Amino acid sequence: MATIPLGRYLWERIHQCGVNHIFGVPGDFNLTLLDHVYDVLGLEWVGNTNELNAAYAADGYARVRNNAGCLVTTHGVGELSALNGIGGAMTEQVKVIHVVGQTSRQMQKDRMMIHHSIGFSPDHQVFSKASKDFRCAAAELQSEKGAVEEIDRVLRECFVQSKPVYIFFPIDLVDLHVSAEGLKTPLDLEPKADEKSVDEAATAILDALYNSKRPAIFVDCLVQRHNAISEMKQLVDKLAIPVFTSNMGKGIIDETHQYYVGLYNGTASAPGVQSAAEQTDLLIVVGNLPSDTNSGGFTRRIPTEKAVAINTHDVDIKGQKTYSGAPIKAVLRKVLEQASKERVPEVSMPKLPEKTVEDDADSKMITQSWIWDRLAESLQAHDVVIGETGTASFGIPDATFPDDITWITQTYYGSIGYATPAAFGVDIGLTDTKAVGGRPRGRTILVTGDGSLMLTVQEVGNMVKQKLAPVIVIINNAGYTIERVIHGARQSYNDIVPFDYRHMLPFFSMPEAEAKKNFHRAETKAELDEILKLGSVKQPKTVQIVEVVMDAMDVPWRLSTQVASRAPGAAKEMREAGFKVREVKKEEASWS
Amino acid sequence: MATIPLGRYLWERIHQCGVNHIFGVPGDFNLTLLDHVYDVLGLEWVGNTNELNAAYAADGYARVRNNAGCLVTTHGVGELSALNGIGGAMTEQVKVIHVVGQTSRQMQKDRMMIHHSIGFSPDHQVFSKASKDFRCAAAELQSEKGAVEEIDRVLRECFVQSKPVYIFFPIDLVDLHVSAEGLKTPLDLEPKADEKSVDEAATAILDALYNSKRPAIFVDCLVQRHNAISEMKQLVDKLAIPVFTSNMGKGIIDETHQYYVGLYNGTASAPGVQSAAEQTDLLIVVGNLPSDTNSGGFTRRIPTEKAVAINTHDVDIKGQKTYSGAPIKAVLRKVLEQASKERVPEVSMPKLPEKTVEDDADSKMITQSWIWDRLAESLQAHDVVIGETGTASFGIPDATFPDDITWITQTYYGSIGYATPAAFGVDIGLTDTKAVGGRPRGRTILVTGDGSLMLTVQEVGNMVKQKLAPVIVIINNAGYTIERVIHGARQSYNDIVPFDYRHMLPFFSMPEAEAKKNFHRAETKAELDEILKLGSVKQPKTVQIVEVVMDAMDVPWRLSTQVASRAPGAAKEMREAGFKVREVKKEEASWS
Repeated sequence: MATIPLGRYLWERIHQCGVNHIFGVPGDFNLTLLDHVYDVLGLEWVGNTNELNAAYAADGYARVRNNAGCLVTTHGVGELSALNGIGGAMTEQVKVIHVVGQTSRQMQKDRMMIHHSIGFSPDHQVFSKASKDFRCAAAELQSEKGAVEEIDRVLRECFVQSKPVYIFFPIDLVDLHVSAEGLKTPLDLEPKADEKSVDEAATAILDALYNSKRPAIFVDCLVQRHNAISEMKQLVDKLAIPVFTSNMGKGIIDETHQYYVGLYNGTASAPGVQSAAEQTDLLIVVGNLPSDTNSGGFTRRIPTEKAVAINTHDVDIKGQKTYSGAPIKAVLRKVLEQASKERVPEVSMPKLPEKTVEDDADSKMITQSWIWDRLAESLQAHDVVIGETGTASFGIPDATFPDDITWITQTYYGSIGYATPAAFGVDIGLTDTKAVGGRPRGRTILVTGDGSLMLTVQEVGNMVKQKLAPVIVIINNAGYTIERVIHGARQSYNDIVPFDYRHMLPFFSMPEAEAKKNFHRAETKAELDEILKLGSVKQPKTVQIVEVVMDAMDVPWRLSTQVASRAPGAAKEMREAGFKVREVKKEEASWS
Repeated sequence: MATIPLGRYLWERIHQCGVNHIFGVPGDFNLTLLDHVYDVLGLEWVGNTNELNAAYAADGYARVRNNAGCLVTTHGVGELSALNGIGGAMTEQVKVIHVVGQTSRQMQKDRMMIHHSIGFSPDHQVFSKASKDFRCAAAELQSEKGAVEEIDRVLRECFVQSKPVYIFFPIDLVDLHVSAEGLKTPLDLEPKADEKSVDEAATAILDALYNSKRPAIFVDCLVQRHNAISEMKQLVDKLAIPVFTSNMGKGIIDETHQYYVGLYNGTASAPGVQSAAEQTDLLIVVGNLPSDTNSGGFTRRIPTEKAVAINTHDVDIKGQKTYSGAPIKAVLRKVLEQASKERVPEVSMPKLPEKTVEDDADSKMITQSWIWDRLAESLQAHDVVIGETGTASFGIPDATFPDDITWITQTYYGSIGYATPAAFGVDIGLTDTKAVGGRPRGRTILVTGDGSLMLTVQEVGNMVKQKLAPVIVIINNAGYTIERVIHGARQSYNDIVPFDYRHMLPFFSMPEAEAKKNFHRAETKAELDEILKLGSVKQPKTVQIVEVVMDAMDVPWRLSTQVASRAPGAAKEMREAGFKVREVKKEEASWS
């Protein structure tokens, strides 16, 4: 095959980069392009129920595969619908390839009033302009000449920068032929490293470490995004110093690891964790993403002069010297290679106070203070937990995961509705991971709330259609509890459209008898205990719904603490509305 | 009340413009702003199930009210999710006010990494930049000083241009006080007319008319958007010459009107209509929106030298002279005032050939060639019919509506998923229309397909919650039939997630016994006949679901004809895939 259609080239190349499933929604400007998906061995089309869901699904797929996800939409209506999902991938640094089937070049040139366009004499590129700030690169194809190079360029950028890219594909280019020669050489997807800079950075990091007395490591989520988990784990083992993590970085280092201290989330940390972190004299900060929601409302303040920051593409030594051209993976590898165990100071582990016992600990009903530990306890090796923005994303971080659990949350972007389609993408991705010879797969466990689920619920139907088997835990607390705690606890705007979850699987065409067996509902702790022990939940063969009824005014303490940090009057407003707000007193860790 | 909070001012002003319901989704940057909605007498908060649906609902509300619709979203995630709905309002010239609750000015200035933002050191205005091409004006409030004037300015622009506007509202401005003085004077929402230009344009139009031999009027949808239906109807009565309309302009002039000829859609017109239109020597074209989908794929070609075009803000006389500063409503009013009946040539009505009898006319099963007339027959005065993009929007135009039916369709933008939330907005709007002393209300009749419904189905739950009573006709033809006919008839990408509609209302929390009574399913013509005669469908008290099972490969002839016009090989491809494609022969109208 000396030449192939450009459309086929695109899919062959994307598949070569490690993508095995394509998400999206068909539309009349991408249909012929989609035909070529079927031409590529090992590549499969997976439709979604709408474009926003497709973007979320591609994001979840990318995260769980530590690779890229891809979606296809159509000119205008499709690409705009997906945009918010792409925004999330942009800010959380997730590799998403968004292919847009465009009108033909002639239609564009003639500014024809083709459906989906804007106005009289429409500029067909207004949609592309709208996504400019939500992508790191775009191929705006306008000729088969040079198209291959453009596609290759943006695919590389997607991986190097770990951010979304766009490929705008006019429909009349799909079947023009291009040379297939390039496909013989797989793309180099590694960021370019300045060897000298990496070397010097590693030396500077190790110097700082060797000269410290009580160093520790702080691991955040960009380690995962830039594919450096393996190096990070090895480095933790080798350096043998205490490790902290963040809401978003949770799970990268096993929480049962002997050097794991806890989740350092500023004032909203478990007792003693903040104190322990502040008693260090050097923090090696890796892959930091310090948004309000990932830093206890900016209360995790790491003094620059005590920090060595290994960022995604550079290294900063105590605010005094920066090494550019130093990608995170390359730097970790180099530090790992050069570290001399005997020169690393020996540090004991800090002793933390006991976990706070909540005053509702005796409740028979399911409470925020109980559920997250209970769910964590039920996890099995290789499980992937997706926590929706809401009480789930603020509650789960408080629980300690067993080994080898992947944690996915969109805590910086925080777009409610994300988690359900992301879980769809994750479950498809896990099929893939197994297929390509990766680690054995566990369950996909989605933990969402009734409010968030409402926004994107139709993707559950797609799980049924695709015969996936995620466990979907729905916190049914009668509305937007995360909003109630912020403001307007009893205002009608925080109410939602109530769903009767018993009817969800039958609505999505699961036969009634089967659906009945796969629906579970718990109001009490005892009921949830029983459900979590069921064989069908421990080894699901089909979608499992676990509805958990909870009080609308019950919130995780991490959430109320974070909200309290927003403004001086916030805690008072919450208490007046009827929320419990924990007095956060800084408890000391003892460190020998 | 000498001064009021700026947030309250906003809602008072919007309400004063005629808006009685606010759509949207709460988010932590709009909650305190939403509080003030409750302060305004006669203004009501109506939440939606997601932001895209809120935008569609506001659009539907605006159309049916011949006024504006309003939605509120939150910074970033909310506004981007709504963007595609706003794009539709932009290109179809619908008045939508999009209020975005933003981060505080200090957060913006400090480029803080507040959740929903993009990247490190985020520019909080990237979202506003993204919607720039999808609005006609924006108030980017940054101080309480001048804020009132900015709000007033963009509200006026919304009405004058009949396009979406944005009001970006930083959260810390909500409770700052401003003068309430301005509220004493309602805003002037009429476009500015150049009286001389309007006068001259009217004279020129009438001159052309008086000097013609066989004139006619062509009425399109922008007449509705620019609030000129009443003037249009009166003018048709006064001039007493034949009237044509378009897919999108259908229903503005009653189709039983003595001067109504038919829907002139180029080659995809009913037999004789194209011929009749082409036999005129002058067409008064009013409010034209000539997109591909609204012009039979650009086959409705009206020669400039035979046309007088009354556009939204100017008038063009046979391509020879243009009058600017001449808003459509003012021009129609002036023509109406100046027209001298005796000088208008007397024109007989053209005689059209019989409607084509389809070869599947005898089928017992429900066919595309049968259903639309049958549905039209069941319509009652004041009903509003919303036809989703798909076989509905291409099939319904072929049926003749009884008097006083409103037709809503998004045929230029054609974003599937639009119709369901738009129907929600319409039904809320009809409550309103009645409340403010307008015409009596009829039913809201949504005609959608299984493919489109999938995208935005949760808004049906909101109909149940709000105790609305639309009739929802679902064409269940197992996938994206409109895409199948374009390409890939049997490709898996044109399959969808199947829903079992029996379970829809129970899933949306309607009690089972009640839900059972309100669900209807028809496979045969006889069954549908019976359903349409039911009291619960003729006078619905709650949501009615009418599932209509149809063949995946059956399409309205208008759709196949339109698709055939796309490219030389298109008809052949359709036939090979198994579709029926009508031989379109131009049939002559006879005109005495």
